[in-house]
Amino acid sequence: MHDHSDVLHRLKITEGHLRGIQRMVEEDTYCIDIIRQIQAVQSSLNKISAKLLEGHLNSCLITAVRGDDPLEQERVLKEINEVFEAANKI
Amino acid sequence: MHDHSDVLHRLKITEGHLRGIQRMVEEDTYCIDIIRQIQAVQSSLNKISAKLLEGHLNSCLITAVRGDDPLEQERVLKEINEVFEAANKI
Amino acid sequence: MHDHSDVLHRLKITEGHLRGIQRMVEEDTYCIDIIRQIQAVQSSLNKISAKLLEGHLNSCLITAVRGDDPLEQERVLKEINEVFEAANKI
Amino acid sequence: MHDHSDVLHRLKITEGHLRGIQRMVEEDTYCIDIIRQIQAVQSSLNKISAKLLEGHLNSCLITAVRGDDPLEQERVLKEINEVFEAANKI
Repeated sequence: MHDHSDVLHRLKITEGHLRGIQRMVEEDTYCIDIIRQIQAVQSSLNKISAKLLEGHLNSCLITAVRGDDPLEQERVLKEINEVFEAANKI
Repeated sequence: MHDHSDVLHRLKITEGHLRGIQRMVEEDTYCIDIIRQIQAVQSSLNKISAKLLEGHLNSCLITAVRGDDPLEQERVLKEINEVFEAANKI
Repeated sequence: MHDHSDVLHRLKITEGHLRGIQRMVEEDTYCIDIIRQIQAVQSSLNKISAKLLEGHLNSCLITAVRGDDPLEQERVLKEINEVFEAANKI
Repeated sequence: MHDHSDVLHRLKITEGHLRGIQRMVEEDTYCIDIIRQIQAVQSSLNKISAKLLEGHLNSCLITAVRGDDPLEQERVLKEINEVFEAANKI
């Protein structure tokens, strides 16, 4: 439904980043430098989540809110609140 | 528009918690215990934000998405994405 | 032991900020604006925690690591790890 | 210096998880489910960072604090504070 090529591209880059971090661990790189790279990966994942949510709000959410199924609308709104709460906790 | 008494109640409790933390600092409490109390305050604030977003989704968002002003809808959806991104960064 | 006047000052400002947020709620301010102010408070609390940890590392931690009580050292290092893990989860 | 086999194992699992998420995107899985999986990956990365910091505190930090190079000690303590601050912001 959405064009996910940008998200997919970012995920592939993040996967490469994570493989690089494994090499750092194997080569016994200084721990703090590894932690910083892991934090950079988490930043990238935050951006990917935001991209996905943006697509979701502009499609599924609009469909649900304009639709005539109140339970479906409630479900979609609840999910958004749940991922927001989870985002706060990560 | 919404009933914010629950949010207000939680904010007052959090303010009291923050005053308690100031006393801990004044009494030279062990730093780690102070940091833990600050983290507890941040957890409470996360719950308050989630409550507020829940109210927002169930009122303003629905109004905007069902309304006939595409710019208003775009603005409301963009804001939700922005607070989600900010939540990831705190 | 440490000079906590800076931390105390920041905590007082944060408490004032939190009282301002309560007024926003009472005056039925737009929810997203309230959420953004809560996120600003959380940012301030992050800085205060970092200040406290900095003081802790430069005093208690050094004392524990240079001392001759291995259990005390273990306890202090474990605590730092715990607040780091908790920081990740907030 | 440390035994990083556990960290390496966790990183490999996380990489596999991330590849699974790419498949979810390719198969046009429901966005919210993808966001939840990304959040699970971020939780795993938090645990890996904490493991790494634990090893760091119990080796490099102790060496630096017990050593006779005050600049090296200062550098090591500053780094720990920096990753703590960064952890708060992710």
